Parts: sequence; structure tokens; C-alpha cells
Amino acid sequence: MSDLASQTQPVKQADKQAVAAALREVLPPEAVLYDEEDVRPYECDGLSAYRKLPMIVVLPDTVAQVQHVMRVCNERKVPVVARGAGTGLSGGALPHPEGVLLSLAKFNRILEIDTANCIARVQPGVRNLAISQAVATNKLYYAPDPSSQIACSIGGNVAENAGGVHCLKYGLTVHNIQSLDVVTIDGELVKIGGNGLDSPGYDLLALMTGSEGMLGVIVEVTVKLLPQPEAVQLVLAAFDDIENAGNAVAQIIAAGIIPAGLEMMDNPAIRATEDFVHANYPVDAAGILLCEVDGTAEEVAEQIKRVEKVLGNCGATEIRKARDEQERLLFWSGRKAAFPAVGRISPDYYCIDGTIPRRSLAEVLAKIAVLSKEYGLRVPNVFHAGDGNLHPLILYDANHPGELERTEDLAGKILELCIAVGGTITGEHGVGVEKINQMCLQFDKAELTQFHAVKAAFDPQGLLNPGKAVPTLHRCAEFGAMHVHGGKLPHPDIPRF
Amino acid sequence: MSDLASQTQPVKQADKQAVAAALREVLPPEAVLYDEEDVRPYECDGLSAYRKLPMIVVLPDTVAQVQHVMRVCNERKVPVVARGAGTGLSGGALPHPEGVLLSLAKFNRILEIDTANCIARVQPGVRNLAISQAVATNKLYYAPDPSSQIACSIGGNVAENAGGVHCLKYGLTVHNIQSLDVVTIDGELVKIGGNGLDSPGYDLLALMTGSEGMLGVIVEVTVKLLPQPEAVQLVLAAFDDIENAGNAVAQIIAAGIIPAGLEMMDNPAIRATEDFVHANYPVDAAGILLCEVDGTAEEVAEQIKRVEKVLGNCGATEIRKARDEQERLLFWSGRKAAFPAVGRISPDYYCIDGTIPRRSLAEVLAKIAVLSKEYGLRVPNVFHAGDGNLHPLILYDANHPGELERTEDLAGKILELCIAVGGTITGEHGVGVEKINQMCLQFDKAELTQFHAVKAAFDPQGLLNPGKAVPTLHRCAEFGAMHVHGGKLPHPDIPRF
Repeated sequence: MSDLASQTQPVKQADKQAVAAALREVLPPEAVLYDEEDVRPYECDGLSAYRKLPMIVVLPDTVAQVQHVMRVCNERKVPVVARGAGTGLSGGALPHPEGVLLSLAKFNRILEIDTANCIARVQPGVRNLAISQAVATNKLYYAPDPSSQIACSIGGNVAENAGGVHCLKYGLTVHNIQSLDVVTIDGELVKIGGNGLDSPGYDLLALMTGSEGMLGVIVEVTVKLLPQPEAVQLVLAAFDDIENAGNAVAQIIAAGIIPAGLEMMDNPAIRATEDFVHANYPVDAAGILLCEVDGTAEEVAEQIKRVEKVLGNCGATEIRKARDEQERLLFWSGRKAAFPAVGRISPDYYCIDGTIPRRSLAEVLAKIAVLSKEYGLRVPNVFHAGDGNLHPLILYDANHPGELERTEDLAGKILELCIAVGGTITGEHGVGVEKINQMCLQFDKAELTQFHAVKAAFDPQGLLNPGKAVPTLHRCAEFGAMHVHGGKLPHPDIPRF
Repeated sequence: MSDLASQTQPVKQADKQAVAAALREVLPPEAVLYDEEDVRPYECDGLSAYRKLPMIVVLPDTVAQVQHVMRVCNERKVPVVARGAGTGLSGGALPHPEGVLLSLAKFNRILEIDTANCIARVQPGVRNLAISQAVATNKLYYAPDPSSQIACSIGGNVAENAGGVHCLKYGLTVHNIQSLDVVTIDGELVKIGGNGLDSPGYDLLALMTGSEGMLGVIVEVTVKLLPQPEAVQLVLAAFDDIENAGNAVAQIIAAGIIPAGLEMMDNPAIRATEDFVHANYPVDAAGILLCEVDGTAEEVAEQIKRVEKVLGNCGATEIRKARDEQERLLFWSGRKAAFPAVGRISPDYYCIDGTIPRRSLAEVLAKIAVLSKEYGLRVPNVFHAGDGNLHPLILYDANHPGELERTEDLAGKILELCIAVGGTITGEHGVGVEKINQMCLQFDKAELTQFHAVKAAFDPQGLLNPGKAVPTLHRCAEFGAMHVHGGKLPHPDIPRF
């Protein structure tokens, strides 16, 4: 029925014991788990709607051990799913029931901090925020800041090409790393990338970044560090018309200003968060923008002046500059608490991640509102407006029979809407298992075939994270058929970029 | 003896006629050239030390024609070498004597300018500068600016991941394009990249960028456009000690300033250019820095103040801020005329392109001076200091027997020096045929093997630009042997990143 079909078959105990024994030839016994109560904690990542028990969980703490795990799995054709902190939202670390779940949790050391060249060598299990904390005394920091940065690990950030509120100005993970150590499926240690702005040979660094554990296992990351900005300022603007808010986003960028953060929330999201954290948001606004700029004191003062002017010209009904650091953090507190906030007003919620051209913001929000009514499911919206990265939050109740299915169907429709306006089905969360069907709409046969050829160049037997990120053509054929059955063949009316 | 050995074999006339006939089934006769006088103009690119006559030259002007060329060559196992404007400096467009040279010269139209989303869709043969000229009235421009930007084409820029004086702040070509249309060796048209900051699936956009015509032929490029900076200012600083100049570069970056351009020239380069363009450079300085910042008037004024402070602290003997636009262009004129300037003081010169960590600038310059004496060849240095991209210019006379060989040997030594300090053998010119041996030192067997696997995923028969960019393991074995024979096995003393 799908790439994940094999996961429904029972694990052969004999295999399990034999593989475990082979792994224990190099790994200590406590680093090879297979009893149900031991592997249960690894059954899902942040996309908890999908759960599978892995056959075996390994917790290596040296590169040599990772190489051994890969060689054993390669020889015995055992699937390998790498896992960082397990905070991913697209099911990229969902275990394979006949496979080995390779946890990088023990790779948690910062190996080197080179302030002269503004880089740090870290192990993949190091938490995103821990890097900035380690170099704070040097007035440096690591720019990408996913909402989960307290918990998520840098290895996972690389695997998903994670972003955050600052990626509009400072780029995604791929723009903030310099080199990787990767163990291939046959156990080879490969160094990727280098010191220079450019690197000879094919750009495997970018290829590996965002490849969702399909090409190799990351065992070391060299990240770029940036000087902490001297000054930061935040402006909150309210709009009585979401179209004006969307237009303001375009105008700020068109003015040549690249804010450190440019976030939008619609009215349902504003109300939910205000009730929760009391950030003093204007609860009657159709939408608000949070625009933060950073740099030297002079730059910031000058840019804020221009931002306020643009916001005024675009019909903002209210413009508030944070009076002090405390108020700046208060304004952010609402946006950052948006997910738990909607969690309070609904038993369950489903976070969607898609990207659209900025000019389509208002149009897409209007269409999401229509779909929301059609499905009878509330959908507050928060998003990284600057780079058109949407995070609609579908509110549902898993205890109501069929509501999860209806929610997933609505989520699919919203992603297809992103494609239809010339956008993509991911912003920063990856594809994983969550969006694998929509990949069939995003890409055509020639493109998917090329993806599979690249995959085979790294993993000829298809053992790395099988069934994730890139659908088989067979699966897409079925999905297309499913769509026809559903009365709609989406391909024709989706404009190719 | 090498990957290019096959190029010494004579072309079988029968093949030539049969291939030409097959090509003419779709291409008009005037677009299929094979008489010697017709193909002679294509015998080399900017690296004119290497020359080969192609078997056939094709000049398609539609994507369908390119697809036909690829299908014909794929069926008949005929090598295909794509060529843009032919300004490349590493021999990436050197023809294959038994192959088809595919010129994109007729793909010279700007297809769409989308100011709302700050992008332009252009054909690969469009000249780099023509893009900025076409959007100048919209106050936009395309940032990467190789020295050859008047002549070089955007397709070639993508193939080589070209840079320029502004890439420190605005990035290389890969950071300034959004999507590509590529024709694969089997004639498929594949769309790569998309509208969003992130794109689902593997990052084929970055993989294709800088792949030197080894993976496919680019038939359309969507470039990102930036708003023209409101203000620009340039500071010229003189140093009586090159180490101070190198230190100043590091200190400017460490101060959190990212100049739009940060160029260095040593004394021989200063003298050569001053004699030529009279840019009013301090001819007794050991080195000069040209530091340009752009942005709003306020930002520029504020940053220039800080730049001047840093330069003073680093022991600059003279600091001159351009008094007006005319003087700013005068200061640049020297740097931009550096190549023709050395061309005046030497019958021939060889431009090297390597990258080193900024902190190693002074050390590497000192070692280049030693090598220069050792080989009895003068080596003026100009470079993009901000990103550590060196362009030493070896002066020689091709009419002196053996001097070209000695020059190429010295060039190899300088590239190995770049590797030894933790840098790379390319900055922005690519590998082509020029640096293919040094690739054996830059990468180990596992890394080269992975490169070949990726290549095979796109081009299983190895027909695209054979013998370029990535050496065979066989070639590296021979090169290693040559080095041992030369009394030096470089591998052990080269620190891995």
C-alpha cells in the first residue's frame, strides 16, 4: 500500500538476536537495546501521530562505533534510521520496525571553538542553543534558531536544514555550516565541505544538508559563528486587514531592509496567545506583524525609522516600538508561545509547514479560511512572513472518530495550495513521512527519478531511513490514483514554477 | 597518461559525418559546424595554454534542440562539452576532440523580470552585466560580479559558481540563484530549485551549481535580484608590513563589519597597476587594502568610521576615503586593471585561484615570495582578502623554452600551499583541467569515490565534460607517484580540515 507497508510485518526474533550480537562485537551491551520497554521511548519523534517500535536501538559514542553499526546493517541489509533529539515535526526519525534506530544522543560534546575564524566544531548531539551559550562570552552566536532550539540538536538541524525566526536575514542551516563529517552506509568516514567560501568538487555539503538521514549519518558539524549584534529593536504593528499586513511585508523587503525577524499572526492566533501569555497584543486586529532589526545602534535606529514609515504607509492601525528590552521580550513571548497557546484551546493541534511567495500571503490566508470552514476545523495562523514560511495550526480532537484523518486531509489540501501558488511543501520541517504524498505533486517523474539516482549514489540498497522524504514513483502513481478517486487530479492546475 | 589522453587520438571521420547528420535531423545546418576553420574559434576558453579542436560544434537555440543534441550524443556515446562565453580560466570548456562542443551562445534572452519577487528568468547565454543593466531602472541589480562580468554568461557563472569582489557580503552564484532548468544527458528537462528559501528533496540546485558541466546542461536560470544600495563608500589603506594588512582584514570582519568589497594588493601588483592606470596608489607601500561598504547613507557613514578606526589600530600608514564617486572609481580602476597591468610588464602571465583562511594571509604571501625566488619567476598578488581568495599572477615568457612548464609547476606548489594551511584549490574559477591534479591532494579516496558516484547518478556513461573537475583514482595514483618521484609525498604533511 505504501513505502511504509513493510513496517506492518512482524520482526523476526532470530534476525533481531543475530543483529544485536553483531553490534555488540564493538558496542558495549548497554548501548544496544531491543527489549520493548527499552525501545519504547524511541517509537516516535515530534510527529507523534506516527509511532513504530524499532527492532533495535543503538547508542554509540564514538565514530568507530557508528562505522561498525553501518557496516553490520549494510552487510545484513538492515534499515538504519538516525535520530537526534527527536524534536522533528515531519516524522523523519520515525523508526523502522525491522531496522536499527541510531541515536546520536551520546555525541554531545563541543570539540573546538575557533574565535579567530568564527567557527565551532561540534558533535551532532549538541543542542542548538548550547552552541550560542558556549560562545556568548566571546560575543558570538550561532544564527539559526528553530522554536525547539532549547532541545533540538545540531545534527538534526543539518538533516532537516532547520530555519527559525532569523533565517530571513541569516539564512537556513545550510548557510551557517562549513563542513561535515559523515559516515556512509558502507562505514566510510567522509569529510564534506571545507574552510573556503567555495569548495572544489560537487557541493556535497548542501546536498547532505536537508537530506533527512537518507544519504549518510552525520558525526561532526563545523558551524559558522556570527558576532552578536550590538543593538536589537522590535516593532509591533496591527492591521485591520490581513492584505495590508501582507503588503507591508513585501514593502519592507522592497525598501531594501532585511529584518532579523519578520513574523505575522492572524486574529485567532493573536487571541489564543494573548489569553495565555498576556503579551499585550491588540486582540481585535485582523493580524499583527513583529518586525525586528539588529546591527549597530545607528543602523538599527535608522532602519526602525524606515520600517515605521513603511508600516504607516501600508495602513497599520497601530505601531508600537518596544520601549525597552523587557517589552521587546514581552512582544516576542506571544509569538514564541503560540504553539502551547493553541494547545490550551484545543485537545490536539497539527502544525503545518509550507512556503509561498510573499505576494500570495493574503490570498493563501483567505483560501485557508475557506478550507477551515469547509472542514469545520479551526486554523489559527502564525508564520515567518519575511520568507513566506507558513505555520497554520489545525485544531482538532483525536478522541472524535475520524477527526485526525480529516485534519491530515485538510493539511494536505493546504500544502497543495502552497504548491498551486508557486510555493513549496516545506519551509523548515522537512518532508519525512508527513508530506511524502505531496512530494508527488511538487515534483514530476523526471525530478523524482533524479532524486532516486542521487540517493542510490550514496545508498544503493536503500537502507538509510527507507520510506521517508522522497516517494517512490509507484507510491506517487497510487497517490495520483487516490486523488482521481477523490474526484480531483491536482497535477493539471498546478503551475510548474 | 591522463584523463585527457584520449584527446590525442585522431577523430574517425565516419563518426563525425554520422553524428553531424543525426544532429541535423533537428538542428538547422548552420547550427552544426565541423570544418576546421569553423570549429577553430572554440579550441580553448580563457585558459589558452590548453587547446583542442572539437569534433563538432553545435549552436542550438531552443531547449528541444539541446534535448536532441543530448539524446544523439547519449545514444552514440559521444562526449558533450557545454560552453558559455568561453571566459573561464580553468579550462572547463576545453573541447573534447572526439566530442560535441555545445555552445549556449544563442540562448541570450532575458525571459522575465519579476520585480515584485525580485527575480529574473534568463537564458544561460545572457551576460552577467546585462542582467543588472536590464533591471537598473527598477533600482535592482544582480550581485555576483566576476572581473569578466562584461563578457561572461550567467550559465557559465552557475557552472563555475562564480564570485567577484562583492561575494564576501552577497555570496557566490549559488547564493544568488533560485532555480535552474537543466537538460540531462538522456535529454530529460529537469526543473531544479524553487520559490522558497528551502526546497523539499535533495538540494540539487547547489549540487548543480559549480559542477562544471559534469552533471547536465543548464538551459534556464532564475536569478535573485537585490535592491541597489542607497550609498557606497570606499577607503584605501596603505601598510608598510603585509602582516598588518592581513591582520586588518581579520579585525574588520571581527568587528562585525561585512564590507561589500575587501581587496588586497601587494607591492609588485601596486607598482604594475599604478604605472598603467595612475590610480594614485602609494607605490612604496608593502600592501594596500581597498575596503568598500554599502547600504543606507547612515549605515555607510557609521561603518566607514569604524573601518577607519580599525585600520588605524592595525598600523595603516595612510588611510584615504574617496572624496567623491570619481575618486572611488579611480581607486577601483587600479584593482580592476591589475590583470592587463601585469600583462604590460610580462609577455605572459598565469592567474592562480586558491582560497586560504584569513589568518594565514601573511604566512602564505611570505611563502609565495620564497617560491617566487626559488623558481626565478615574479609573482605579484591581488586578492579578495575578505574571503581569503588569492589571485597570485605568475609572470613568465612562453617563448623561453620550459618556462611555461616551470610556471605550471610553481602554480601547483602555490595551490598545495593553500591546502596545507587548511584552504582550498579554488575560490571562484573552478577546477577544470587546470587544477585536476591538486584535487588528488584536496580530497582522499573515499571523498573522490563519492564524487564519482554522484557523477554517475547523472551521467552513467561519463559523457558530460570528461576529464574535467574530478580526477579518476587512477590519475591520482599516477600523480601521487609523480610526486614521490619528485622527492615529495605531500599527503602526510597536509592537515585534514
